[in-house]
Amino acid sequence: MRPIASLETPAVLVDLDRMNRNLDRAADYAAAHRLALRPHVKTHKSPRIASEQIRRGAVGLTCATPFEAEVMSEVGNDLLIAYPVVGPARARRVAALPARIRVIVSLDSLRAVEDLAAAARAVDRPIDVNVELDLGMHRVGTASVDEAIALARAVQASPPLRFLGIAFYPGHIREPAAAMDEKLMTLSARLETAIRAFEAVGLSPGVVTGGSTPTLWRTHELARVTEFRPGTYVYNDRTTALLGACTWDDCALTVLATVVSTSVAGQAVIDAGTKALGREPLDGAGASDGFGALLDRPDVVVRRMSEEHGILDLSRSDWRPGVGDQVRVVPNHVCIVVHLHDLVYGVRGDAVETSWPIAARGRGLKAFAP
Amino acid sequence: MRPIASLETPAVLVDLDRMNRNLDRAADYAAAHRLALRPHVKTHKSPRIASEQIRRGAVGLTCATPFEAEVMSEVGNDLLIAYPVVGPARARRVAALPARIRVIVSLDSLRAVEDLAAAARAVDRPIDVNVELDLGMHRVGTASVDEAIALARAVQASPPLRFLGIAFYPGHIREPAAAMDEKLMTLSARLETAIRAFEAVGLSPGVVTGGSTPTLWRTHELARVTEFRPGTYVYNDRTTALLGACTWDDCALTVLATVVSTSVAGQAVIDAGTKALGREPLDGAGASDGFGALLDRPDVVVRRMSEEHGILDLSRSDWRPGVGDQVRVVPNHVCIVVHLHDLVYGVRGDAVETSWPIAARGRGLKAFAP
Repeated sequence: MRPIASLETPAVLVDLDRMNRNLDRAADYAAAHRLALRPHVKTHKSPRIASEQIRRGAVGLTCATPFEAEVMSEVGNDLLIAYPVVGPARARRVAALPARIRVIVSLDSLRAVEDLAAAARAVDRPIDVNVELDLGMHRVGTASVDEAIALARAVQASPPLRFLGIAFYPGHIREPAAAMDEKLMTLSARLETAIRAFEAVGLSPGVVTGGSTPTLWRTHELARVTEFRPGTYVYNDRTTALLGACTWDDCALTVLATVVSTSVAGQAVIDAGTKALGREPLDGAGASDGFGALLDRPDVVVRRMSEEHGILDLSRSDWRPGVGDQVRVVPNHVCIVVHLHDLVYGVRGDAVETSWPIAARGRGLKAFAP
Repeated sequence: MRPIASLETPAVLVDLDRMNRNLDRAADYAAAHRLALRPHVKTHKSPRIASEQIRRGAVGLTCATPFEAEVMSEVGNDLLIAYPVVGPARARRVAALPARIRVIVSLDSLRAVEDLAAAARAVDRPIDVNVELDLGMHRVGTASVDEAIALARAVQASPPLRFLGIAFYPGHIREPAAAMDEKLMTLSARLETAIRAFEAVGLSPGVVTGGSTPTLWRTHELARVTEFRPGTYVYNDRTTALLGACTWDDCALTVLATVVSTSVAGQAVIDAGTKALGREPLDGAGASDGFGALLDRPDVVVRRMSEEHGILDLSRSDWRPGVGDQVRVVPNHVCIVVHLHDLVYGVRGDAVETSWPIAARGRGLKAFAP
């Protein structure tokens, strides 16, 4: 048995029991509501965890980057790249995924259709396409349903691309679960209108795909959604807990850190700073309150950071750590934390049981010599 | 010739001429003022760039982590770990650096002395120790000179550790150069007082090491400083330019990105978000104004971000990009950007001349199977 206390810090720990519980719960929800679950792999970036999701009934996987798709092609046969595939280099990489894999892309521009079609034609590979609608987040997605329909027609006119359905991302709904009723109803009504407009011109969407972790448990309330794509739910984080989409005890991922200095009164310095935790505010969950909190002492937050230093604010606690003490930080936003590290340790209680690489971290680019 | 336009994005570009100019300028300043330059490698994390610094006269290198020191031991013979070496795992790794390397550690606690001494004794390796003073940043460093002297004596009583000198980091001085006079004078006075107290008890510091990139060009004004440790100066960034410690034309590192969506009016979405740029505010340089700005259009800033999306604010510009256009973003804080990527492309004009891995990115941890 290898104790957690023996690990070099900072290190990412995943509580295996909590993770399995999180995976089970979402799979059960999907089954109960007959929704297709297509988890976003950005949160774990690991084929090992993706396999666990598929084993529990996920219909496929969602990826953001070509590299994530390449790595996930080890374990998945049905991959959605939920990101505009713009630019010849990116499009070629997507079209070059192993032939046995069904590839789907969500996009919102004619340029993306053209780049993707050119790459798909060059290797004679069919690619299914979802048209992305902006339903309130104002990040990507066509602003009007007419534009979306025009794009769908452009897809149909660009074999080997095939029009599949409608995609959206409700990332603007970040209220606590009880306060999101009105936004959910508005979203649902806009979705219904869009689907009817598609149907009216003979473009019946085969898939309506949306969903996030904050809205996870209310996906079934959205009109005619067939598929949802949460990512964060596998590990959860401080934001998700404060939004009420999970409890504090559902937070499976922590950053193990060591107190390296207590020389300034009222604070303790840990070896987890921006390079271990990111610098993500608690958006949508009320006032900003630090960049993470201790698992065992949620009143102690990481108040300030440098790259390798996190400053614990001790003003709301009687606890006074000593130099050398270890702590576990629940980060505000878990996805960026995973992107910052190479390796995860799987733990149960105080024991490290296993570890796995964050295989799809980075971009998979190769250096070349002059 | 490989054109920049052919690269997959997001990608880190380093303008080789600008970088060489930045390296030359700091080396010239060090020589002119007879200061030892010990650059912090955290900004580039590359033995190749470290070699360039050593070739220009750097006396050694500064590292934050054991992994940085391990990677830099390929090219450097004199390494300072400017971070409290707390915890047996970290201390063992530092003590295990190749025997030919002179190792120095800065620390601020008895616990760090004990951990380091135990690891050094176990392999019979001398390690030089700087005692870290807090001279106003309130992050690490002993609060009083008496504590610092007590620590220096503890070091002397813990062979094979050897007391070397005094370290500090003026990270709290982030004013524009012209406005930092008073803080520099206060710092200098506190430093002089500390050195005299050390001398009064027979502990003459062999080295007085401090300095940052914002204060770089005024290091010679600080009382009896022998050595300075800037990191950012090799690439510079938007914060450094706004502080006046470099010009906009000295910013050598940019993140190449592609416009992937323009479907929402008044903005353009690029494929560089928090996973490519970090989420670093413009601290110390006035009001927060986005997370980066375009190299050719500094009025266009990255206003909001998701992990893979950066939202360009077009409200202060007439420029309207198309989907597929490439842009180059000068990040607010370059060090975190380097930590986020695997690879750098070295460019001149529009041509990619070379590339190199960010070799010391991450922690150098190894996975183990159950």
